[in-house]
Amino acid sequence: MASLTKQKHPYLMIPGPTPVPQEVLQALAEHPLGHRSKEFSKIFMSATEKLQWLGQTKNDVFIYTASGTGAMEGAIANTINRGDKVLCLAIGVFGQRFADIAKLYGAEVTVVKADSGKCISPQELKEALAKDKFKAVTLTHSETSTGTANDIKTLVPLIKEHGALSIVDVVTSLGCMDVRMDEWGIDVMLSGSQKGFMIPPGLSFIYVSENAYKAKASCTSPCYYFCWTQARKALNDNTTPWTPNVSHIVALELALQMMVEEGLENILARHTRVRDKLRNGLRDLGLKLLTEDSSASCAITAIYPPEGVAVPDIRKAFQEDHNIIIANGQKELKDKIFRMGHLGFVSDENIDMGLNALKAVLNKLK
Amino acid sequence: MASLTKQKHPYLMIPGPTPVPQEVLQALAEHPLGHRSKEFSKIFMSATEKLQWLGQTKNDVFIYTASGTGAMEGAIANTINRGDKVLCLAIGVFGQRFADIAKLYGAEVTVVKADSGKCISPQELKEALAKDKFKAVTLTHSETSTGTANDIKTLVPLIKEHGALSIVDVVTSLGCMDVRMDEWGIDVMLSGSQKGFMIPPGLSFIYVSENAYKAKASCTSPCYYFCWTQARKALNDNTTPWTPNVSHIVALELALQMMVEEGLENILARHTRVRDKLRNGLRDLGLKLLTEDSSASCAITAIYPPEGVAVPDIRKAFQEDHNIIIANGQKELKDKIFRMGHLGFVSDENIDMGLNALKAVLNKLK
Repeated sequence: MASLTKQKHPYLMIPGPTPVPQEVLQALAEHPLGHRSKEFSKIFMSATEKLQWLGQTKNDVFIYTASGTGAMEGAIANTINRGDKVLCLAIGVFGQRFADIAKLYGAEVTVVKADSGKCISPQELKEALAKDKFKAVTLTHSETSTGTANDIKTLVPLIKEHGALSIVDVVTSLGCMDVRMDEWGIDVMLSGSQKGFMIPPGLSFIYVSENAYKAKASCTSPCYYFCWTQARKALNDNTTPWTPNVSHIVALELALQMMVEEGLENILARHTRVRDKLRNGLRDLGLKLLTEDSSASCAITAIYPPEGVAVPDIRKAFQEDHNIIIANGQKELKDKIFRMGHLGFVSDENIDMGLNALKAVLNKLK
Repeated sequence: MASLTKQKHPYLMIPGPTPVPQEVLQALAEHPLGHRSKEFSKIFMSATEKLQWLGQTKNDVFIYTASGTGAMEGAIANTINRGDKVLCLAIGVFGQRFADIAKLYGAEVTVVKADSGKCISPQELKEALAKDKFKAVTLTHSETSTGTANDIKTLVPLIKEHGALSIVDVVTSLGCMDVRMDEWGIDVMLSGSQKGFMIPPGLSFIYVSENAYKAKASCTSPCYYFCWTQARKALNDNTTPWTPNVSHIVALELALQMMVEEGLENILARHTRVRDKLRNGLRDLGLKLLTEDSSASCAITAIYPPEGVAVPDIRKAFQEDHNIIIANGQKELKDKIFRMGHLGFVSDENIDMGLNALKAVLNKLK
């Protein structure tokens, strides 16, 4: 267990920031390009097109220089007016965040909350939709705080049927799980660079359908930095409305090129495989998982500590003995679970490494 | 003129992105740290303290993962309510931007506009303040679009006397010109990473006084990603409310350390010296400058092309013959002026290089 500990930087097994390939790190060290140069425009548009490929959509995608929470606010600020009725499906911290933001923008918010580790069933959604007429429904694909995934393929069409806008957080699912914006009829979706994209935090991505543009057209909420009208006008000129993080976009273009070369099917198969490998390995160690197999995220897994072993001790031993960082639970799940990330630049060997380290940690602590 | 053209990346003589020292670029290529790790917290807090040093203040500074326009929106969204009276002093594109954002947030906006290349005189400000009772006044220190600097040392106390909040854009002045937040009584000020900070675009910085926090306490405008209440709470825990751009913050800390080692007085003297060297050299070439010496920014200089020479041709020859990028004018100044940046990682030798290139370009085009 000595070699990794000698490395300066710990191995990140958290749900973002995630490991970054060496060539992508080197791209970050290139001297910044002028953001209005033809050379940068070309890279920016190429990254934009690859983001469409990843989200399986012909809709516009905007690259925000902001983290995922900025894109969440952008999704609300561009569509929701004071007094609008918004249904927020919350299966964890990030689902609840949409509700907090919508309330701040004056929406009349109904929250349907699932127990930790559970997703929202089609039946629960139907019942919630039957109670009122909503303008929009927010939901999370892969909930980072629990490692639980909603079946958005089934839920989004129910939202469409209701006549509401679907606003989907695909922050930890895009690039890890199948997300078919056009086929499933998602209206707005958003993700972040430090997740499945194999680059550090600093950018987020928001996908905007024609339906969403219609909502924008009648939206009076104040919105400048994240404004779609400004972003769309700039995109038509192959650029961004404000000075973008050029270095991260150069790195993004390279990482997306690596993803195109791997192929979407292979990327999704790899994420499913490493998830299952990890879950099986964890069960072999006698551990209980927070989420059932049927709704397990391909990006992150939440694990109960064994009886009598404290989560902070597990995390500490992971870091000190193995130079690997794993995550605690968040909010009410703090110290109740620990979380291991397996998204982006992740291989079967990384899972072996994580499981071996966990085995050693538990042997030490039990 | 051959050697630079062989380099892959052009030399940036625009008002941001600006040149970045090699060791700072290498810092960007370090593997990202976990954003909730102790190691990152330490770097984050160290950068925050150095930002206070640079702004000559004991006030809080928040690092936003966003470009300067995001921080401009943050300044308004945290302080201005619908119907508030806001006076916006506009000496160019960026001064006007504050007015646009304040209007979006429902403020009753009065704009005092100076002619291109002129600053706002104390007398003009006094007259504007005498006409109404304003809650806030927005102004620009160094206006990026014209290279004109307002005398904020004189203007800010007049705003304070009026009882209004002063919200100052120090985007291209901080790290280039003297900015004394506490001594001059600035309430809110903001800057961006790709300017005097010697790192690429991706971060902005917002400085918040106790007066500004008082305005925040009674502000009902929707504001989440840029919210000071959330940022202050997180800062007290040595962290950020949302996942920050850890790579840029590591680079920022290194660049700020280099600035501390150079010394604030030396940094300011260097920027004054290169500005004057450039302005003298430009006049020696027979060129007319947009801004008088008395209000010339230390970060950027706007220059009229000689009679009969087109701005796009000058820029093209700079790039093609010398691999140097210079900027056009913006909005109504487009093709009327060109701009040369001299901020951040800039030396006397860079000015020589720029002037020699310009001489060759003009000889070719005239």
